[in-house]
Amino acid sequence: MNSAPSIQKLLDELERLPGVGPKSAQRIAYYILNAESRQAIRLAEAITEVKETVRFCQTCFNYAEDDECAICSSPIRDHGKICVVSEPKDIAPIERTNVFDGVYHVLHGALSPLDGIGPDELRISELLRRLSDGSVQEVVIATDPNVEGETTAAYLARLIKPLGVRVTRPASGLPVGGDLEYADEVTLSRALEGRLEL
Amino acid sequence: MNSAPSIQKLLDELERLPGVGPKSAQRIAYYILNAESRQAIRLAEAITEVKETVRFCQTCFNYAEDDECAICSSPIRDHGKICVVSEPKDIAPIERTNVFDGVYHVLHGALSPLDGIGPDELRISELLRRLSDGSVQEVVIATDPNVEGETTAAYLARLIKPLGVRVTRPASGLPVGGDLEYADEVTLSRALEGRLEL
Repeated sequence: MNSAPSIQKLLDELERLPGVGPKSAQRIAYYILNAESRQAIRLAEAITEVKETVRFCQTCFNYAEDDECAICSSPIRDHGKICVVSEPKDIAPIERTNVFDGVYHVLHGALSPLDGIGPDELRISELLRRLSDGSVQEVVIATDPNVEGETTAAYLARLIKPLGVRVTRPASGLPVGGDLEYADEVTLSRALEGRLEL
Repeated sequence: MNSAPSIQKLLDELERLPGVGPKSAQRIAYYILNAESRQAIRLAEAITEVKETVRFCQTCFNYAEDDECAICSSPIRDHGKICVVSEPKDIAPIERTNVFDGVYHVLHGALSPLDGIGPDELRISELLRRLSDGSVQEVVIATDPNVEGETTAAYLARLIKPLGVRVTRPASGLPVGGDLEYADEVTLSRALEGRLEL
């Protein structure tokens, strides 16, 4: 592959992407080389455009192309319900369920004292400010079901409950379509504790 | 993720890449969103540059940035040995071995009558032209060891041998580091037929 420095440059840049090793980088580079110029240029432009236009929503700190993201500025969303997530990428899976019709708040991290991430490193004061006018009835804390996520959820619940706002958390339990045999103990204990009447 | 059309556009373009599904596309898109602008721009520029500068070597039809690729224009390569490959991407693994010091010829495909790929669809006449002045002593046919590759190799050997040029093919056999137990029958037969004195 030493025949073209520009190919090597592309390979180097592709290998920086997450989940792209030397072999995938080569496969993608050859694909780009074989693709129509128009298609390759579209990819390059999409990368440039996203960096130029995308910033953070001033209300929820999700990615946005304007001061407010499409969800925060939507009149059909229920602005009385806020779903708190750690990262912008956590919003997509929730949106795909079509179950939540409220708005979001992105913390940009989770509490992790060992890594030096305390409340001041997260968008927590901004969340509390959104709750200050009494228009929000429920906060769903959808941080990850791991140590940092649970710690963050517990911390937020302690802060928010005194404001008279309902604080909830998505249920932990067995994944649908999963196999009881392969469930880990913690998940299975949660599933049993949260058992429902049939 | 419906909050920014430019993110959706990037996701769409990323998903067209080989080996990149919706999840990888999202991971890469978030990586680009979080990356420094400078790094993202470098990737976009590498894509554009490769499409603008890379064409085919007029001698061997490998990718090149000039009329001739770096290998064909190198004075330290042995121009009396030509290694024939199906695709430009087959050159990189051979170069990595550091065993072959000759030059290449890229056919851009392999014979496959069922897919309508005959000798005229490949760069075969160009290969024969390179052999016409008698300066080439050996042609190593490194097409893939599958039906199309073997057919192509046999076809080329029939054309080239009468010219008094030595025609060889890389040995088939057990992969180094592999396990005899898991070798398929065809590979094992080849390995036994090609057994060497110790």
